[in-house]
Amino acid sequence: MGLFEFASYALDHLVDALRCLPGVGPKSAQRMAFHLLQRDRQSALRLAEALSRAVNNIGYCIECRTLTEEKVCQICLDPQRKENGQLCVVESLVDITAVEATGQFSGRYFVLMGNLSPLDGIGPKDIGLDLLDLRLRQGDVSEVILATNPTVEGEATACYIAELCNTHKIFASRIAHGIPIGVELELIDGATLSHSLMGRRKL
Amino acid sequence: MGLFEFASYALDHLVDALRCLPGVGPKSAQRMAFHLLQRDRQSALRLAEALSRAVNNIGYCIECRTLTEEKVCQICLDPQRKENGQLCVVESLVDITAVEATGQFSGRYFVLMGNLSPLDGIGPKDIGLDLLDLRLRQGDVSEVILATNPTVEGEATACYIAELCNTHKIFASRIAHGIPIGVELELIDGATLSHSLMGRRKL
Ligand SMILES: [Zn+2]
Ligand SMILES: [Zn+2]
Repeated sequence: MGLFEFASYALDHLVDALRCLPGVGPKSAQRMAFHLLQRDRQSALRLAEALSRAVNNIGYCIECRTLTEEKVCQICLDPQRKENGQLCVVESLVDITAVEATGQFSGRYFVLMGNLSPLDGIGPKDIGLDLLDLRLRQGDVSEVILATNPTVEGEATACYIAELCNTHKIFASRIAHGIPIGVELELIDGATLSHSLMGRRKL
Repeated sequence: MGLFEFASYALDHLVDALRCLPGVGPKSAQRMAFHLLQRDRQSALRLAEALSRAVNNIGYCIECRTLTEEKVCQICLDPQRKENGQLCVVESLVDITAVEATGQFSGRYFVLMGNLSPLDGIGPKDIGLDLLDLRLRQGDVSEVILATNPTVEGEATACYIAELCNTHKIFASRIAHGIPIGVELELIDGATLSHSLMGRRKL
C-alpha cells in the first residue's frame, strides 16, 4: 500500500517510476507527479512520447559508441575529423559535450560508457575495448588522447588503453590534471595539488 | 541547433522534455537522459507508460478535488470520515499526506490546488471555492479546518473561506502556527515568533 493509495494506483505507480531518474528521491518524485498532474498534463504526455521515441530510435554508433539514431554518428562521418587522426577517449557522452565546448579539439571520440572495474565485474569488453582495438587496427588513428576522469578507475582504464595503444604503436597521451584556472592554491585539495606537482613542466 | 545535434534529434528532444519536471535544469535533464539511455532503458519505457497512464486515467474527485481515478475518491467515500463532520482545507495534495501522517485527523479534505491571488488573476473559482460553497450547503460539514500555509496568499485565502463558512453558519478554525517542537526560541525567525505570540493560549 503506497503513499497515495487514497488517491489512485496510477499516481503511486507514477511516483515510483519517476524514481528511476538519477537524483530523484521519494519527495521529489512526489512533487514532480503532483506538478505534472495538477498543472502540466500536456508536458507529461510530451515527456512520455519523448522517452519512448528516444528508447526506440536511439542506438549506439558502431564506430565510437556515442548515442545516435543512425548506424554511424555525425562526428564519425565528418571527413575532416577523420583526417585529423586524433581520437579522444572519454567515459561518457557528457564529456564529449565538455570537450566540444572548448573548441580545442577537432578529431573523433570513443565513448567507454564507464571504466574498468574488476571488483564490479566490469572488464575490457564491457567498456567496448574490443571495439577500440579494432579501430586502432584500421590505421587511421595517429594519437589517442585519454580523457577519462582522474579517479582510481579512470586512471586504471587510461593505463590499460595506453598499453593497448603501445601494442599498436600509436601515440597515447593523457589530458593534464592540476589546479583549475582562477582558483587559488590554498583552496585546492591535496590530490589535485599532487597531480599538479607531478604534471609540472619546464618553463 | 541543440546541444546534442551531433548525437540525435530524439536525444535533444528528450533532454528538452525532461525540463518540464520541477527543479530540473538543463544540466540535470542531460544527466537524466544519458542515464536512462545508457543504463536504464527499461525504466525509461516504464516511466513513459506511467506518465501516459496517469494523465489518461487520473482526474479530480468531484467532492474534494483530490487526484483520483474514480469519480469520488476513497477518502470522500469513507462513511466514518463523513460522519466525523470535519473538513480540512489544504493547498495541495502533499498537504493531505502530511496531515494523514499525523494520525490526528479523521475527517475529509478539500484541496484548493493553489491560493487566491488577485494579482495573478487567480480568483475564487480557480481554486474551487464555488464547489466548496456547494459542499457547505449540503449540511454534513460541522467544522472547516483551514490548513493553508502561513504565507500572505495562504492567510488571505483562509480569511476568505472563514467568511464563507460564516455565511453558512459553520464553525471555521485555523491550524496553529508557532515554534516547532524541539527548536529553540533564539533560532526562530521573527514572523514565526510573532505568530507564536499572537496564538498564545491561557495555561
Ligand atoms: Zn560515432
Ligand atoms: Zn474526494
